[in-house]
Amino acid sequence: MDEQQATVVHRARPSGRDAKRAARSARSSAFVPYITRKIPCYEVLDAEGLAIIERNADTILEQVGIEFRDDPESLALWREAGADVAGERVRFPRGLCRALVQKTAPAEFTQHARNPARNVVIGGNRTVFAPAYGSPFVRNLDEGRRYARIEDFRNFVKLAYMATSLHHSGGTICEPVDLPVNKRHLDMVYSHIKYSDKPFMGSVTAAERAADSVEMVKILFGADFVDAATGRPKTCLTSLINVNSPMTYDATMLGALKVYARANQATIVTPFILSGAMSPVTVAGTAAQTLAEALAGMALTQVLNPGCPVILGSFASSISMQSGAPTFGTPEPALVLYTMAALARRLRVPFRSGGSLCASKIPDAQAAFESAQTLLPTSLAGVNFVLHVAGWLEGGLAMGYEKFVMDVDQAGMMHTLLAGVDLSENGQAMDAIAEVGPGKHFLGCAHTQANFESAFYRSPLADNNSYEQWEAEGAKDMAQRANESWKKQLAEYEAPPLDPAIDEALLEFVNRRKAASPDSMV
Amino acid sequence: MDEQQATVVHRARPSGRDAKRAARSARSSAFVPYITRKIPCYEVLDAEGLAIIERNADTILEQVGIEFRDDPESLALWREAGADVAGERVRFPRGLCRALVQKTAPAEFTQHARNPARNVVIGGNRTVFAPAYGSPFVRNLDEGRRYARIEDFRNFVKLAYMATSLHHSGGTICEPVDLPVNKRHLDMVYSHIKYSDKPFMGSVTAAERAADSVEMVKILFGADFVDAATGRPKTCLTSLINVNSPMTYDATMLGALKVYARANQATIVTPFILSGAMSPVTVAGTAAQTLAEALAGMALTQVLNPGCPVILGSFASSISMQSGAPTFGTPEPALVLYTMAALARRLRVPFRSGGSLCASKIPDAQAAFESAQTLLPTSLAGVNFVLHVAGWLEGGLAMGYEKFVMDVDQAGMMHTLLAGVDLSENGQAMDAIAEVGPGKHFLGCAHTQANFESAFYRSPLADNNSYEQWEAEGAKDMAQRANESWKKQLAEYEAPPLDPAIDEALLEFVNRRKAASPDSMV
Repeated sequence: MDEQQATVVHRARPSGRDAKRAARSARSSAFVPYITRKIPCYEVLDAEGLAIIERNADTILEQVGIEFRDDPESLALWREAGADVAGERVRFPRGLCRALVQKTAPAEFTQHARNPARNVVIGGNRTVFAPAYGSPFVRNLDEGRRYARIEDFRNFVKLAYMATSLHHSGGTICEPVDLPVNKRHLDMVYSHIKYSDKPFMGSVTAAERAADSVEMVKILFGADFVDAATGRPKTCLTSLINVNSPMTYDATMLGALKVYARANQATIVTPFILSGAMSPVTVAGTAAQTLAEALAGMALTQVLNPGCPVILGSFASSISMQSGAPTFGTPEPALVLYTMAALARRLRVPFRSGGSLCASKIPDAQAAFESAQTLLPTSLAGVNFVLHVAGWLEGGLAMGYEKFVMDVDQAGMMHTLLAGVDLSENGQAMDAIAEVGPGKHFLGCAHTQANFESAFYRSPLADNNSYEQWEAEGAKDMAQRANESWKKQLAEYEAPPLDPAIDEALLEFVNRRKAASPDSMV
Repeated sequence: MDEQQATVVHRARPSGRDAKRAARSARSSAFVPYITRKIPCYEVLDAEGLAIIERNADTILEQVGIEFRDDPESLALWREAGADVAGERVRFPRGLCRALVQKTAPAEFTQHARNPARNVVIGGNRTVFAPAYGSPFVRNLDEGRRYARIEDFRNFVKLAYMATSLHHSGGTICEPVDLPVNKRHLDMVYSHIKYSDKPFMGSVTAAERAADSVEMVKILFGADFVDAATGRPKTCLTSLINVNSPMTYDATMLGALKVYARANQATIVTPFILSGAMSPVTVAGTAAQTLAEALAGMALTQVLNPGCPVILGSFASSISMQSGAPTFGTPEPALVLYTMAALARRLRVPFRSGGSLCASKIPDAQAAFESAQTLLPTSLAGVNFVLHVAGWLEGGLAMGYEKFVMDVDQAGMMHTLLAGVDLSENGQAMDAIAEVGPGKHFLGCAHTQANFESAFYRSPLADNNSYEQWEAEGAKDMAQRANESWKKQLAEYEAPPLDPAIDEALLEFVNRRKAASPDSMV
């Protein structure tokens, strides 16, 4: 029998009752606040290989060192902590950074959402999915590519809120280029709070903007901001601190890092590396450098506020050796990702990496191949916090509306994958096999009927119909179906309720801060 | 620093000499006859979980049994081997099939190609990639979808021959619907021999067509067909035997299986399962049934000819519970794949599964997502023989020209992934990090220059250029670039030399066989 001949098997359409049950199940089984993985993490190196990378990271910290630029305070802290400071270059005794991190940084922590049902646990065997971050442009099928506006930002917060496979509202989902640079963070943080009840990220583009972000969660959480049991602030923000690789921290990022660490808010210390430009062209070299850079920044958070939550981040991709352009979804970054995830587990800290990265300008096959070749390694490697899960196009320069809902669908599949194999009696299904027997089909058997609602992941965007039916329905590609999907979702959006007094206080703060300084586009 | 800001880093275009070196390297490093994996196989179940599936498979074989239809010879062989035969239903004492397989079936074997440099080793830590199989239709951007013809078959043999990431020419790459059903196998086998020198598959649609396939490799290999050392025929064909799941072998497939097993040619015994229709809706149930079905057929090959090569196959996907249509690239089949690969390793036989499967009708984002979500699990699971790596569209009903070259590109990436992390001194790249230091870039350093040619996998189809350059070049999507690629390749194709005497003998055989019976379309 040829393999395609069986692909025309069709079952009778389900009854109205079946359809209703399925819809009900799709609703009820849908939302989990984060993924708790039930399958092993995939690793590409053994313990000996990982130890080589760790030794090399220590050698980099000891012999090459890390520059902390334009930030005398950090240099003073490092001198006090026992590092060798020459100018802005800090060299670390072997093991110092690792010891600082392992002594006090938590292996996992809870980031609180204004809706406690949306709190996320970051670390251990959990995975949290967040939208893409930082694009100055947006793209959709109707308008093509254009600069992002605050309206787009709100739209993506709403879409992320409605996406059952995203657990986090993210941060700078896109840059609202229509607003002043020095004030747009206020509108972004306010939008995350107003249009979603999922956890979110704070501003990092200046220390004072980080401080504004902290003030706003203080208003949002009120008396509840401080944990009564510990007397410490609850962690209500997880924010992105990128290292200026190679081996450099700048004053902007250090400023934000210090604000958040002192306020007990989480930071993701992330060497941003395009191998070949900011690191060597090899996987092992890139991993050692990433670990060294991240360790220095993570250790600094623990010097500032021992015990504050911090995530080891890795953003690694490659460049085209012909043009120097960044590439995504290629095998080398996947190998870096598997390696870094294993190193984070050995360090016993939460790990951030991956997403649905691609270089493609449009939501075509290239975008999908590259995104899948990033998101699946992300999921199998055991990444704990995943930025850029949805929307990323064009190396992060554009946020795609269609790409967003396509990625959300893929993220949904990862929930099913990471749930692993059900070995219960129902999962083994021996009664079904005995009932049906040779040459029959399983469509109507009792086991299939009992499991009908939850049997398989159901993609809202994939077209599995016959060629003839697909043609009759307009021969649409996935991007066209995605276009219909995001529009329908935005039309159906309903905001989660927000206490009017809190809303008013937040707006008062935002307006006061906006009035305090003139608009600036830098 | 926002994550997109670094994505505009560009290096100077390489010099002419660099470009020439890169081209030379791309040629010389390109072809390997098969992949030898250097990273671990990913598994989702532990030994205890796998033992449960094995026990269940034995229970199915013992209590439910397998039907061998319209083939009294197989029933007689089973009776003699100690099975309980009632009508056409065969029930097996626990462990019988496993014992038969483990006693004599080889853990790995060589399939010979007419060019010995193209011989493939199937089993162990090797992976062999072959094109898709069995589509009655073809699709390309110029013509849309139409029935396949022998000209298409030849085109795909040529494209597979030119693809450095395909190791095998496959079998019924597409159905040449313009030729009589009872004679087209002669043209297909001849085309594999004439237009490629990679190994290929024989016909399975009738015992006599399988026998014709064996006769043709006897002509091709001549005196060399029999291994002088062992006196046994060399394995020069690997052919696909699909089980009529659930739990049924039909006379057609048994007829071909017997011909090949007796001639010491390899068979891939493959339960073809769409979960929910031919098996229970669960992963564990589908895996147990697949193992039971495959064990019965594999054991039969060893009863027929102890020691003949046989591959455990699994083709498992799901159906849409709404429409009954087959779905691909969803998480459940990936879990079945990881499970079956581990079971094959425990059985110590080569394993076939996976590919670049999709339900999409066209080479769009859906096709790419689904294909990647099949090919990456295929690669990580440690599949030894992979059919359907290139070209598959529409659940196998159509062979796509653009999809073919897109999939070949992805298969190339899998070569790099499976090569793992280089931990040599050059791979560790500590000299590069010491040379460059904080705040500089790695583009011009000695290590980057030395590794320039082989640094990263280079996709011939991905567009990594700037948005502006991509727009200026026509804003093409990946499918459009793929369209240009397959046309260029076919225009540049050169056939591998074939001994004119062998060619003549093959044509004489083909013509004699065609003349021996009237054309038939069944």
